[in-house]
Amino acid sequence: MQMKNFKEDFPLLRENPVVYLDSAATAQRPESVINSEMEFYKKCNANPLRGLYDLGFKATECYEQSRETVRKFINARSEREIIFTRNATESLNLVAYSYGMNFLKKSDEILVTVMEHHSNQLPWRVVAEKTGAAVKYIECNSDGTITEEQLKQAFSERTRLVAVTHISNVLGCKTPIKRITELAKECGAVVVLDASQSVPHIPVDVQSLDVDFLAFSGHKLMAPFGIGVLYGKESLLEKMPPFLTGGEMIDSVTRDKVIYSDLPHKFEAGTVNAAGAWGLKTAIEYIQNIGFDTIGGIEEELTKRAFDGLMKIPHIHIQGSNNPKEHCGIISFTIDGVHPHDVSSILDADGIAVRAGHHCAQPLMEFLGIPSTTRASIYFYNTKDDIDAFLNSVSSVRRRMGYGK
Amino acid sequence: MQMKNFKEDFPLLRENPVVYLDSAATAQRPESVINSEMEFYKKCNANPLRGLYDLGFKATECYEQSRETVRKFINARSEREIIFTRNATESLNLVAYSYGMNFLKKSDEILVTVMEHHSNQLPWRVVAEKTGAAVKYIECNSDGTITEEQLKQAFSERTRLVAVTHISNVLGCKTPIKRITELAKECGAVVVLDASQSVPHIPVDVQSLDVDFLAFSGHKLMAPFGIGVLYGKESLLEKMPPFLTGGEMIDSVTRDKVIYSDLPHKFEAGTVNAAGAWGLKTAIEYIQNIGFDTIGGIEEELTKRAFDGLMKIPHIHIQGSNNPKEHCGIISFTIDGVHPHDVSSILDADGIAVRAGHHCAQPLMEFLGIPSTTRASIYFYNTKDDIDAFLNSVSSVRRRMGYGK
Repeated sequence: MQMKNFKEDFPLLRENPVVYLDSAATAQRPESVINSEMEFYKKCNANPLRGLYDLGFKATECYEQSRETVRKFINARSEREIIFTRNATESLNLVAYSYGMNFLKKSDEILVTVMEHHSNQLPWRVVAEKTGAAVKYIECNSDGTITEEQLKQAFSERTRLVAVTHISNVLGCKTPIKRITELAKECGAVVVLDASQSVPHIPVDVQSLDVDFLAFSGHKLMAPFGIGVLYGKESLLEKMPPFLTGGEMIDSVTRDKVIYSDLPHKFEAGTVNAAGAWGLKTAIEYIQNIGFDTIGGIEEELTKRAFDGLMKIPHIHIQGSNNPKEHCGIISFTIDGVHPHDVSSILDADGIAVRAGHHCAQPLMEFLGIPSTTRASIYFYNTKDDIDAFLNSVSSVRRRMGYGK
Repeated sequence: MQMKNFKEDFPLLRENPVVYLDSAATAQRPESVINSEMEFYKKCNANPLRGLYDLGFKATECYEQSRETVRKFINARSEREIIFTRNATESLNLVAYSYGMNFLKKSDEILVTVMEHHSNQLPWRVVAEKTGAAVKYIECNSDGTITEEQLKQAFSERTRLVAVTHISNVLGCKTPIKRITELAKECGAVVVLDASQSVPHIPVDVQSLDVDFLAFSGHKLMAPFGIGVLYGKESLLEKMPPFLTGGEMIDSVTRDKVIYSDLPHKFEAGTVNAAGAWGLKTAIEYIQNIGFDTIGGIEEELTKRAFDGLMKIPHIHIQGSNNPKEHCGIISFTIDGVHPHDVSSILDADGIAVRAGHHCAQPLMEFLGIPSTTRASIYFYNTKDDIDAFLNSVSSVRRRMGYGK
């Protein structure tokens, strides 16, 4: 059976010969998403939730329909649990400021895994600084696994919040989120899941995961920039104070008193990004039309191809598991004697876009004992040809850096 | 001389017969802005500031060029003073959290005018609650003017921050910002200017205004949703701690230490909205091509026409100054015996979009002694026909509500 070439759906990939292997940083956008945002401005544009006129109603309907699409996508119980933010970083900061600053105190412990992206580490350090709580690390092994012993070592009766990624943006491994949630429950801690790297690739069900908060960015899911999501359990969101304050999140304001709106609007101050939300809805529908089985199948096949190819090239070291199935399309690697920035530049000269650096996960880099890596991240719109071009270029890097054949 | 019909530049206004008089809530978007955002995704899409490859460089260049365009547009000294945010609300909250929470203390006084939008009131109340500072009001008169006496009454040696709008979103009047800045300087207070309603209509020069902070939203300026600006004086931004933390705003992170990036990136955590910034650049260029003289001329003429027409209709009361020149295109009014929501619904039935409500300025409403108004807000793409249709519809409202001829 001939697989559909999904690049056809992506204007940039159709018109630009780039081999794009940086989807873990941001995905490319399908035509349907680009068009839906454009159509919003051409047909429904008004300030949502405010105008009592035809366009205003349309804009509000688009916005709230998008919320409902997100709710179903992650299987939240209620649309009151879906807060639109700018991106995962803002979602995580919202929880840090509104939950962390108000419900954590001195002597409480916050756990973060050593694999966390800075966005799921730094907000908790700020909370710790202000509240006197302590940030402690859940250690991992160099393949990204976290053992029961490592978990037990980290958890204590003082644990009150656990910030954990669903899939590492460097190693591509899944964290043992179910076990972490169990342990958190035992000590009455809330779990904040960074789903930025999982939501684009695997089905995510907040009820089955039973996490308290979950954050992701739209742009890694092929939605426009500037739209993100925070899921939170209603009982928690209810008791949290607003984070940003301003228009649209109040019921009434006098000189002496402010009554805030109900969920979810309490957390959405100011004019919302309705066109972005509408684009996110379209992106989710695009994913659902293809299906996670198809997406996962393509990614697994291409990851294996890349993995096997890299293993045959001398002087290459892949970080994380040696099983390509445990990489979720993410392959971080180093080449002996060549700085990842140089690897990236050489690949760029061959029209291949990969990421080089610390991937906003410096504590993990420190643990791995390397300052940076080159990272290729695969999405379903990549092809075997992409992988072969990538391997071909990688295999030439040392020669081109003057190491001889 | 025949004036250009600017509606031709706006797909929604071209294809939809709506008389759009709610531009103070959000503007319509010209084709050039819609296309520029689309082109970003089709030609330059990558995660800016991160990827060391061709598309990554292009995305970064678009983003930083947009910053430079904003810098010139408001005449800031340095691009380090331009922070991209989601909207004015986030910009103001950034100042409240990062400056207010850290540099204000018990017994300090924060001044806000009674005309402020909730977005420039509530963040300061939150600061006051947390720091023990007090929020005091600068009173105004019913025409929106603020006298020297009212200013003198509000300022004290304890004043440390003054939050003021440039143009009221309800009355359309300009505040005496130069005098306020002078008085603030005398007592060592910083001035936070909400320029949401001014930047789309009049030239704004931060050096000449000499304010410390200035906030505006892109979407009222015809840019996409999801992009806003905070200007801050470099010396202040330098000493302020980051607001949101996460990716792209750090130099280095270890388990023990975080070193934050330089300005402006210190305040831009997480993946930035590069496509939105690029759209904002295009919107600014579109405005500059037309010129504020032309924009102001059209708005003044149309405001006068609407004003004169409304004055001839019995039972109508216009809020604010009785000089249309002092309304900057904003006309809030009430009709005896008809709730503004009903006014808005009747106008909607005639295809006219106006706003009804408290306009996120309840303390001003309380002062004016009315719970809400109907607001027509004019932009340069409106026409005489729009105004005549509006007047025609307004003149029929009481009859249609059963008050007889």
